[in-house]
Formats: sequence, structure tokens, C-alpha cells
Amino acid sequence: MKFHLTLAEIANIIGVPIDGGTDTIITGVAPLDTAQADHLSFLAREEFLPLAATTQAGVVLTTERFAPHLPPGVRALIHPKPDYAFARVLAHVVSISKPAGGIIHHTASIAPSSSIAKTARIAAGVVIGEHCVIGENVEIGCNVVVEDNVTIGEDTVIESGAVICHGTVIGMRCYVGHGAVIGSEGFGYAEFEGQYHRLYHVGNVVIEDDVDIGANTCIDRGLLGSTIIRRGTKIDNLVHIAHNVEVGEHTAIAAQVGIAGSTRVGRRNRIGGQAGLTGHIRTTDEVTIGAQSGVSKSILQPGEYSGTPAVELKRRLRSEAVLRRLIELEPILDSLVHKLAPKPTDQLRDEQE
Amino acid sequence: MKFHLTLAEIANIIGVPIDGGTDTIITGVAPLDTAQADHLSFLAREEFLPLAATTQAGVVLTTERFAPHLPPGVRALIHPKPDYAFARVLAHVVSISKPAGGIIHHTASIAPSSSIAKTARIAAGVVIGEHCVIGENVEIGCNVVVEDNVTIGEDTVIESGAVICHGTVIGMRCYVGHGAVIGSEGFGYAEFEGQYHRLYHVGNVVIEDDVDIGANTCIDRGLLGSTIIRRGTKIDNLVHIAHNVEVGEHTAIAAQVGIAGSTRVGRRNRIGGQAGLTGHIRTTDEVTIGAQSGVSKSILQPGEYSGTPAVELKRRLRSEAVLRRLIELEPILDSLVHKLAPKPTDQLRDEQE
Amino acid sequence: MKFHLTLAEIANIIGVPIDGGTDTIITGVAPLDTAQADHLSFLAREEFLPLAATTQAGVVLTTERFAPHLPPGVRALIHPKPDYAFARVLAHVVSISKPAGGIIHHTASIAPSSSIAKTARIAAGVVIGEHCVIGENVEIGCNVVVEDNVTIGEDTVIESGAVICHGTVIGMRCYVGHGAVIGSEGFGYAEFEGQYHRLYHVGNVVIEDDVDIGANTCIDRGLLGSTIIRRGTKIDNLVHIAHNVEVGEHTAIAAQVGIAGSTRVGRRNRIGGQAGLTGHIRTTDEVTIGAQSGVSKSILQPGEYSGTPAVELKRRLRSEAVLRRLIELEPILDSLVHKLAPKPTDQLRDEQE
Repeated sequence: MKFHLTLAEIANIIGVPIDGGTDTIITGVAPLDTAQADHLSFLAREEFLPLAATTQAGVVLTTERFAPHLPPGVRALIHPKPDYAFARVLAHVVSISKPAGGIIHHTASIAPSSSIAKTARIAAGVVIGEHCVIGENVEIGCNVVVEDNVTIGEDTVIESGAVICHGTVIGMRCYVGHGAVIGSEGFGYAEFEGQYHRLYHVGNVVIEDDVDIGANTCIDRGLLGSTIIRRGTKIDNLVHIAHNVEVGEHTAIAAQVGIAGSTRVGRRNRIGGQAGLTGHIRTTDEVTIGAQSGVSKSILQPGEYSGTPAVELKRRLRSEAVLRRLIELEPILDSLVHKLAPKPTDQLRDEQE
Repeated sequence: MKFHLTLAEIANIIGVPIDGGTDTIITGVAPLDTAQADHLSFLAREEFLPLAATTQAGVVLTTERFAPHLPPGVRALIHPKPDYAFARVLAHVVSISKPAGGIIHHTASIAPSSSIAKTARIAAGVVIGEHCVIGENVEIGCNVVVEDNVTIGEDTVIESGAVICHGTVIGMRCYVGHGAVIGSEGFGYAEFEGQYHRLYHVGNVVIEDDVDIGANTCIDRGLLGSTIIRRGTKIDNLVHIAHNVEVGEHTAIAAQVGIAGSTRVGRRNRIGGQAGLTGHIRTTDEVTIGAQSGVSKSILQPGEYSGTPAVELKRRLRSEAVLRRLIELEPILDSLVHKLAPKPTDQLRDEQE
Repeated sequence: MKFHLTLAEIANIIGVPIDGGTDTIITGVAPLDTAQADHLSFLAREEFLPLAATTQAGVVLTTERFAPHLPPGVRALIHPKPDYAFARVLAHVVSISKPAGGIIHHTASIAPSSSIAKTARIAAGVVIGEHCVIGENVEIGCNVVVEDNVTIGEDTVIESGAVICHGTVIGMRCYVGHGAVIGSEGFGYAEFEGQYHRLYHVGNVVIEDDVDIGANTCIDRGLLGSTIIRRGTKIDNLVHIAHNVEVGEHTAIAAQVGIAGSTRVGRRNRIGGQAGLTGHIRTTDEVTIGAQSGVSKSILQPGEYSGTPAVELKRRLRSEAVLRRLIELEPILDSLVHKLAPKPTDQLRDEQE
């Protein structure tokens, strides 16, 4: 991605003052180790100091503490959170590289009862059903399907190949990844006479503002009410969120996580990759769940949990340490048992007494 | 979802007698806690009794035992399986809300050698290949791809964005979720001189009647023969079913389960979310497998299994209880060892004797 | 799949000499147990000897050692790796069954700045963005989306419903399965003032030659640099590969595996289904990782690893054996503790001394 920004413009984007060199031209972003004199890079973590020491980047966003580690001649822009500053520059260059103005590709099929904002961009092969409302600056990628009665808030991006099922409500500034399915039928059945009878799901999915959803992720609609993803929450690829789940604000859910039906996840949870949460439980706010964990009960105290079944990290680490100790002791315990243990017959007698 | 049914019509759908109040009008369905006077709800499980006690629903489907817990003025319709009765009402209201009559959208591309029933509904952007047979009342959603030589039985629904690969046979009254892929290439290779050589899969997938398949689920075709999903089986989202697997009748498979190649799953199995079954094994009928379990050997006795490797639930619970006891005992065992254990040199001598 | 090959032609495909019977006609492939006189089958593993003993196949590819186990009248074609020989025959019959010559379906939308080779086949509903280069004999399935600035090497197949995101580079003879997403946005955020701020990913994905990718698999693009899949690597369905991962040559990754950001997988690794690798680690060459394993640290020695956290298979099996022994000993240890353990007060005194 090529662009053309002066140092002054970059400083302005991230909101820091500079003095001197304001006309330096930056035309790209790159990691510390491959950046050249016209590149912007960033240094936010100690582990990258070795790369920083030899970087040839023109400008590096970094903290006051790390700045002295840059080679002479590399310009540092100081920000307390360099990764956040870098995120703002990236967002800026991505936004200016986008074509401006609304457009509806001639191959898109849009039901006449739907309302598309003038500035929305609808790509080739898109199908939009009846009674939808598509907000200002919304971008809908190629071959996306938007079923009936869907509302999409302004500045939201729906990537190519995604499907937004009927009745879904999506807020502002959301991102729905390629191939994601929002509002799929829930997996709910009534068993009767040895067969499963489908409970047709007549609820919907509600996605609040500033939510990101990864590629090929599936969020099922509610049986009667709504499946809800609260604002600011970020969801990775290939995640499964079942019917009537509610995910709290500013929660992060890594790839391939599965959350079963009616479970309520709190605010600011962090759920590691491939973890699973059983149905009809809840987690409180500020809970971290380790990768591949199996959460089978509600978590009512903030903290770190992991393992299957998931327990507090401290408790799990202690159990594991004790088990390792027992494994070490086993040969000695075994020989002790041989020497000291009551004979089976004695044991039996003991129990009868 | 709004509709208009009298109490008499609802009683007729679920096959129960009523006396009086037959003209009560119901216009929607809702959970017990949000239902209003013109809503139908249902009460099937003890845990919802607290919600039932204050419900304002007009009519509640419930059992004889639970009915007395409803507030006065709430009309109970008695059925031994209220969730099943509710499922039937939902199926009815969904079916009457569907547009009637066949239609082929003008943007669909259908090969002339394929046969589409008069009552089938083919949505925008659908592509249907050569020599396909699409049955009566089949619904094919937007941008679905049906490759060559596919047969789809009557009353089956294929949701938007799904792909049905060449040679697939799908029965009657099936449901294929959004983005699902039925008949993808199998993952089979011959290793030769340090490289993998693809075994092109020339088999297919056979889906029997009344099978449901979730969003973004993948079912690979057989190498030579067929991958088979037997009738009545229900499969959730993001499930992987490999080449030449056979899944028995009336089995339920939760989200993100993976079943490796050539494995045969029995009838009426229930497989929990994120569980994995290795290849070339089988499970007998009436087997329940816990979420996240890893099944590495055939299961030949009905029952409940869980864990990695999966063992009978009873056995796993016992092992876990004993381990917990050992963990409690560890400090005492450790101090015992210090007092009583033979010194390493003694131990060595013992072993040499 | 029907075809028409003489025995001489088959022998020629797999490169072995035959004498006599060269005009035998083979019209299909089938497993040993259902093959008929005009079918080709193969026998590569001991476990199929019982089926081989009664096969009615016309011709069987097998080793010198297994050939005597075939019934009289079944013709054996001898090859040291019969599965590889069979793979070559399958590749041949699939290739001759394909329509020849380039074609662009009239419903495809292709930006004029893109270059499509004369022999490429572009199916219905395909969308190709700006500045793409599509090589000779490339096949792009129905409703595939190819975003801007994508390069696809000759003889590569992109199956229906896949999405190739902007900037992706795909080599020669690759296979991208149905619904796969190559180059999706990475899951990277800067936390600031309690909110997640997206790091827009401006890198790309590079797929080298001879790579296969399964259905609905997602490979995220790099934040700044590239996510790289090296040549000869085979990836199954529903796999998640995060931003800036690098996977070495000739590695096999089974279904539903997840690899977190910036991790580097070595050459000739084999990763079992549903395994997870944490971010920022690496595995050396010739590593095998068991199904459902959780790899939380770099693996620097070749070998077999499994479990969560993954350890060397030998070590894990030993630990498990010791644990089983401890579980057996537990009742005796428990009774020993009752008889011999110092009283809590004694213990306390010991510790104070």
C-alpha cells in the first residue's frame, strides 16, 4: 500500500507535536527490519528492541523510553501507546485509499422496497432483499447476500461472500468478514417419538456499534428473542455463536471459539482460540479464558480461567505442579506400598472393623 | 414474525382438544418473560417456572403438571411435549409466511440439461450446472452454486451462499445452511519421494431425507464411494465431516465437531460441540460423546463417553475423583517419603538383589 | 466417473511395464469390495487383504508382496507405492474429463485492467477486481470473488464460492477449496482507553506452488508483511491461519487446526485435526503434532508431540502410565497415610524445626 504523507500530517493524525523535519515524506508502512527511509514503522514492545537497533525506517512511532534505542538518523515520534498511534495512521491511509462516493454495481439485485443511502457502495453480484435499510458510507462487497428486513448502520463494511440473514440489525462502524453468516438458523430441536423436530427460529441477531466479525464466522439468530453482540466487541474467524447468546461490550473472542445457546458473556472478556462455552451459563465482566478451555459452569468472579473443565488459572497451575510432584514420587511410593502396605486381607479386615 | 391464528387453529395444529375461548387471536410468539396478551409461549422445563409465574402471555403450551403454575387469566394448552407442540406451531407459521409458487430469478444461470420442478424457487445469482434434478417446492437461496449432476429432493431448502458440489444427492425435506459446502474434495494424499500427491476424489455425498446441516459446515465427498448422512440426522454449524464417513440415522452433531475419514457413526448418537473423532473407527448406536472429547478408538457399547482420549463417563469421573484425592494427599505423602523411603542407594541395592 | 482406458494406457500412466492383456478395457475406479471386472482398484495396506481376497476388480494396483493375495483372474499391476500409482491414474482421468479451452461466462464481472490468460476458465457469477493476473489453464468456479491486485499462477483451481482478497499471490498448480477465504483481515488491535482499535492489515498472503487449501478455510493477510504458505503444503477444511504465519514446505495440516499470529511452522510438519498453535512460536522441521493438541511453546526438536500443553509423545505416554499407576495405588496410599502420617500438629512442628 503506497501513500504520500508528510511527517507533519502523521503527527497531526496521532495528535502529537513535532518540531523540525515536518516536510519529510513517508510513502509506506513496514516492519522495523524491512523498513526503508521513506517508511513509517512502530516500536511498542521490548522484544522488538533488537530489530529497532538496526532499523532503516525513516520514522518510528515509539515511547519515550524506547526512543533512545533507535539508531541515529531515525526519526522517533513519541506516543504513550505507539501501537494505537500506528493503528490511527493505518486507519487514515486505508480510508484515503478508498474510492469516494456511492455506487451500485449494475449486476446487484436490490428489492425496490429497500432503501440504500446515496453514499453506500454496493459491489457486483450483491443481492439485497425486501425492506432493508442500508446506511451512509456502508460498503457491501461482491456477491454478498442481504436477506429481507435487514438494517445496516452507517460506515459499516460487509466483506465479499458474507450472508446477512433476515431481520438482522447491524450498528455503525461494524466490520463483517468474508464469508461470515450473521443470523443463521439456530440448532434447536424438540425430540418426539425418536425424532428431532426443528424449532424454527423466528428471532434475530442484533450487532451493536463498532463490532468486528471475522471470516466464515457464524452467529445464529435467536429462537424467539435476539442473539446480541454488544458494542466494541471483536470476534475472529470461524467462531460459532449459537442462538440467544449475548456477548457483552468490548469483549475479544479469538478464532474457532464456540459459544453454545443462551450463554451470556460479560463485558471485557477475552476468550482464547478454540475455547468452548457450554449453553445456559454466564461469565461476569473482566474474565479471561485460556485457549482450548472448556467452560462448563458459570464464571462469577473476574480473573483468568483455563483448562477443561476451566478453573482459575492459579488453581490449575497448582494442581498441575502437585501432579508433577506425584509423578516424580511414584516409584518411591510404589516401593513404600510394597514394604508397608497392609496385605489385601488386612485391608479387608480394616474395612470391616 | 407476525401472524394471525385463533386458539382453535393452534389447538388443531398441535392436535389437542379445547373447550371455550376458541376465538382468542394470537399474532406472535415470545418467551414467557416478554410475551403479551396476543402472544403464544411455551413452558416445558422446571427451570422456567419462575418466569411462568409472572408471564403475561395470552396462551402457553405446557404440560398438565406445569399448567397450575401459570397466573390466572393465562390460557394453558396442554400437551405432553410442549416444546414439540411449539415446534409444530412455529413450522406452521413459517410455512404460511412463505411466498407460494415456483419462480426462477432472472439472474440465475441454469444449464439447459437440468430439470427444475415447476414449484421450485430459485433465487438471484444462483448457478445450477448440467444434469441436475431439482424437486418440487425446493427453495434455493441467493448466490447458491449447484454443480453438475446434483439431485435435490422435494421440499428441501438450500440457504444463500451454500455450494452443492458435483454428484451430490440430497433427499427430501432437508435443510442446508448458509455457506455450507456439500461434496468438497477429500483430504487424501499419497506420499511419494517426500511430496504429497493428491488422490482426486471421484465419489460423492449422499444426504438422506430430513437431514439438517448448519452454516459453513463442510462435508467431503468419498474417494471412490460415498460419504453418507442417514435420515433424520441434524448437524450444526462449522462441522467437518471427512471423506467416506457414514453418519447413522437420527444423530445430532453439535457445532465445530470434526469427524475424520472413513469413520462410521451409529444411529441416535449425540456428539457435543468441538468433539473430534479420529478416522477409520466406528461408534455403535445410542452413544453420547461429550463436548471437546477426542475419540481415538471405536466405541462398541452404548453410553456416555467424554474426555481426551474419550472413556466412559463413569470411569472418567472416578479417575478424576481419585486424582483430586491424591492431590490433597500429596503433602503428606511427600513428608512420608522423606521419613520412610529407602535412600536412593538402598533403592538401587534393592533393585540389584 | 466413467472413462475408457486400456490396461496398456494405465501401465503407461504409472510407468510400469506389462506383458499381455494390454487391450483389457477399464471404465471406472472402485473400492476392492464393490469393483467389477471393468474397474480398477488398489491394494496398498495389509488391513485390506481380507477385501482383496474376494475382489472382483478387473485390475488392481498393488505391491509385489500383496499381489499373491488377489484371487485368480484379477490382474495385478505392480508398483512399489500403489496409492501413488492410483493417485496418478485418478489425476489422469480427472484431467481428461475436463472441458478444454478457455472461456469466460457472460455473467462474470471482470475489471478491464485485469489480464486473463486465453486458456483460463472463468465460471458464472465470478467477480474479478482491478489489476489481477490470471494464468494459463486457471479454473475459477462459480460466484468466486477475486479482489484487486491478485495474481493466480497457471493450472491453479479456485473452487466455487471462494474469496481471494486483495493483493494475494497464488502459485502454480494450487487448489483453493469451496468457500475458502484467502487474505482476510487479520485479528489485531491496539487497546487504548478500554477499547480495541483495529490495526488495518496492509500486508498480503503468498501461496507458493502446489499448495492445496480446504473448504471454508481462512488465511489472514499479514499486518505489514506477508502470511506465507510454502510449496507443496496441504491444508484441510475449516483451518484458521492467522496474520503473518509462515508454514514451511510439504507440511500437512488437518481439518479445524488453528495457528495464531506470527507463528512459523517448519517443513514437513504434520498437524492433527483440531490442534492449536499459539502465536509467536515456531516448530522445526519434521514435527508431528497430535490431534487436538495445544502447542504453547516452540518445538525445536523433530519428533512426535501431543496433548495440551503438547509434550513429546514418549514423555506424555510415560506420565499417563505413572498417573494410572498412582490411581491404582490411591486406596492403599490413603490407608497408609491414615496409619503412618504425622498428625497435623506434628507436621507443623516439623516445619518449624
